[in-house]
Amino acid sequence: MIGYCIATYRSHDDKADFHKKAQGIAVGLTVGSWTELPEAKKAEMEKHLGKVLSVDVHEPEGAAPGERYADIRIAYPDVNFSRDIPALLVTIFGKLSMDGRIKLIDLDVSNEFRSAFPGPKFGLEGVRKLVGVQERPLLMSIFKSVIGHDLSGLEEQFYRQALGGVDLIKDDEILFENPLTPLEKRVETCMRAARKAKEATGQELLYAVNLTGPTSQLNANARKAIQAGANALLFNVLAYGYDALHELSADPAINVPIAAHPSLAGAFYPSPHYGIAAPVLLGKLMRLAGADLTLFPSPYGSVVMPRDENMAVRDALLDPSVSLRKSFPVPSAGIHPGLVPLILRDFGNDVVVNAGGGVHGHPLGTEAGGQAFRQAIDATLAGQKLAEAAALPGHEALQAAITAWGVKEA
Amino acid sequence: MIGYCIATYRSHDDKADFHKKAQGIAVGLTVGSWTELPEAKKAEMEKHLGKVLSVDVHEPEGAAPGERYADIRIAYPDVNFSRDIPALLVTIFGKLSMDGRIKLIDLDVSNEFRSAFPGPKFGLEGVRKLVGVQERPLLMSIFKSVIGHDLSGLEEQFYRQALGGVDLIKDDEILFENPLTPLEKRVETCMRAARKAKEATGQELLYAVNLTGPTSQLNANARKAIQAGANALLFNVLAYGYDALHELSADPAINVPIAAHPSLAGAFYPSPHYGIAAPVLLGKLMRLAGADLTLFPSPYGSVVMPRDENMAVRDALLDPSVSLRKSFPVPSAGIHPGLVPLILRDFGNDVVVNAGGGVHGHPLGTEAGGQAFRQAIDATLAGQKLAEAAALPGHEALQAAITAWGVKEA
Repeated sequence: MIGYCIATYRSHDDKADFHKKAQGIAVGLTVGSWTELPEAKKAEMEKHLGKVLSVDVHEPEGAAPGERYADIRIAYPDVNFSRDIPALLVTIFGKLSMDGRIKLIDLDVSNEFRSAFPGPKFGLEGVRKLVGVQERPLLMSIFKSVIGHDLSGLEEQFYRQALGGVDLIKDDEILFENPLTPLEKRVETCMRAARKAKEATGQELLYAVNLTGPTSQLNANARKAIQAGANALLFNVLAYGYDALHELSADPAINVPIAAHPSLAGAFYPSPHYGIAAPVLLGKLMRLAGADLTLFPSPYGSVVMPRDENMAVRDALLDPSVSLRKSFPVPSAGIHPGLVPLILRDFGNDVVVNAGGGVHGHPLGTEAGGQAFRQAIDATLAGQKLAEAAALPGHEALQAAITAWGVKEA
Repeated sequence: MIGYCIATYRSHDDKADFHKKAQGIAVGLTVGSWTELPEAKKAEMEKHLGKVLSVDVHEPEGAAPGERYADIRIAYPDVNFSRDIPALLVTIFGKLSMDGRIKLIDLDVSNEFRSAFPGPKFGLEGVRKLVGVQERPLLMSIFKSVIGHDLSGLEEQFYRQALGGVDLIKDDEILFENPLTPLEKRVETCMRAARKAKEATGQELLYAVNLTGPTSQLNANARKAIQAGANALLFNVLAYGYDALHELSADPAINVPIAAHPSLAGAFYPSPHYGIAAPVLLGKLMRLAGADLTLFPSPYGSVVMPRDENMAVRDALLDPSVSLRKSFPVPSAGIHPGLVPLILRDFGNDVVVNAGGGVHGHPLGTEAGGQAFRQAIDATLAGQKLAEAAALPGHEALQAAITAWGVKEA
């Protein structure tokens, strides 16, 4: 029984014979040549040969130039590549990525290939357990303006975010090792602020510290951070490759959740003609590589991804038919409390509401920023309109937020 | 004295105030906020602030929707990020890549940033020294149809390529660790074939074996390959990240040239609206990360890159004003002997002519394939037309090649 990984491509071409093109891919990226092989050799090579599963040509009558395309599905035998994401990607889209207008739009790995990947170590349920919250979406806030700030500035900012009732706080992904807030000191400082906040709020909190540095030092840096008290990590996956995430998440010593940042993802997914679609790039591959939480642009905020694409990312992270833990979806960028009804409509409970400016930019301050989100989440879960909930006593934070940023009810 | 790395973006937008947008990038990707800072704080933060160097708006009269764009240059203070390519890319294009139609089209690192990178260990001159060829372009050939073949098949194929007079032979980039041709056995077998060929040709030959596997094992695998006799490595850089290449090339124990394969590059560079332009992706960053040879699609063959873009890749690899060794340009894909005049017109001597099908598919066989290229190179250097040279005695290989594939004189 041979396993196959199945790639789906969208190929735009005004004239191509797409069936011939598909056959060329299936042969060219596997055995190299086929029709000219002697029969005995064919029998021997058959198990290495890629198969064209389908060619779905879209050629509307009167199509303008550039509109004709085909979706092509090719099955690649597992036996051709090692059990790692670089080998898989190089096989299915290495050379092919450069061959005209072609985009990788879907990817289904075989069970055998997937079996080499433990996937998320904590996943959605594990992260919920760590913060002790089962019944509602989680709330994450993001450090803002941290470059050039010292430890006391960070501690103060952390504490104010934490007081508002957030469940997770993440570093800014552009904060690297630096003399003002070096990794271990930063972890110690922020975790101290977390404990202090817990005395006031009673709430557990994960701090995802940005894991950076030379590739060969990532594991050691992660251990240092954990040794210093870090209870989560943030990682710019695409800057290092999926395999770096996989190796971190597969290491039992890295015993904290890893949040995958989508940094650089926009270089891959937005073009209709080139690149790798977001549900593969930020969905399937992030989960396979072991991201416990995955950040991606939302369809609501400032950095926009179309809603259907966004829902496909969500589905890839949560698909129950995949034998890996779920990766917590974290739609991000430009999120304010008035968007919570839309987020919960689309994601239900299985979401981390994530905000930066929507917390720090709150008219009544950072603490009120967190509170406003928690009030928006509670109201939405209770089936209330935000405007109505905001009028209730004790909901001044929510009121101020929707006055400032508005509301979009689902 | 603060150093700055300078990124140039092309931003397409039908309505945007590009000057405002540029300011937003310069502030947002560095200090986070600026105008609202107190003056004392501004003085302190000034050294962390990004600077808008220029905003060049292209807005032709009567421009159709989608045609309006600006080229925006931003200077990022070195002090904001660590001296590694992931930190640089995450800073300048991490979040920004997802912010609408924006493409990274150029990147100039500061001397200070560059000083952390030894660059190519051999470079163009070092590779020439290893093969003992100073006066002509080099010739590389590529294994074809290697998946599913055993060691004796590879040895035979290697030997035939070598006999034709090639200077370098590279693995197929989709050949991973496998039971039929495992890394060390493959190296031993191919290097034996190289020695045997040398007895016939008198010629030194580099064999770039494909370096694959888990990220943390790349260094160990490279050492194993070298221990087994490998005198060059091939590496799918973009599947692992530039930093993986940098760490390999910076290690004194990896004392053989590294050829960078452009696998996956087409997911980044071809869109006019998104991604990273080829001269950055396959030019500047490959050289900075230490590629001794860099493969990229040619403007001549089957996988096409526009010529001006291609020349910009070449310039980035060879630019004498950059204080790093040059990276040998290897324009690739669909190259046959009849294209040699174009290649030498565009690259002069500083090029590796690289062919797969153009060697193996030669009507008179693989050995004649190599010979035809060498004859085409010699003729072009001597100022002869290929058709004339092919008519000379002893040039049957070249004659058969141009009969099969034609000639494009420069």
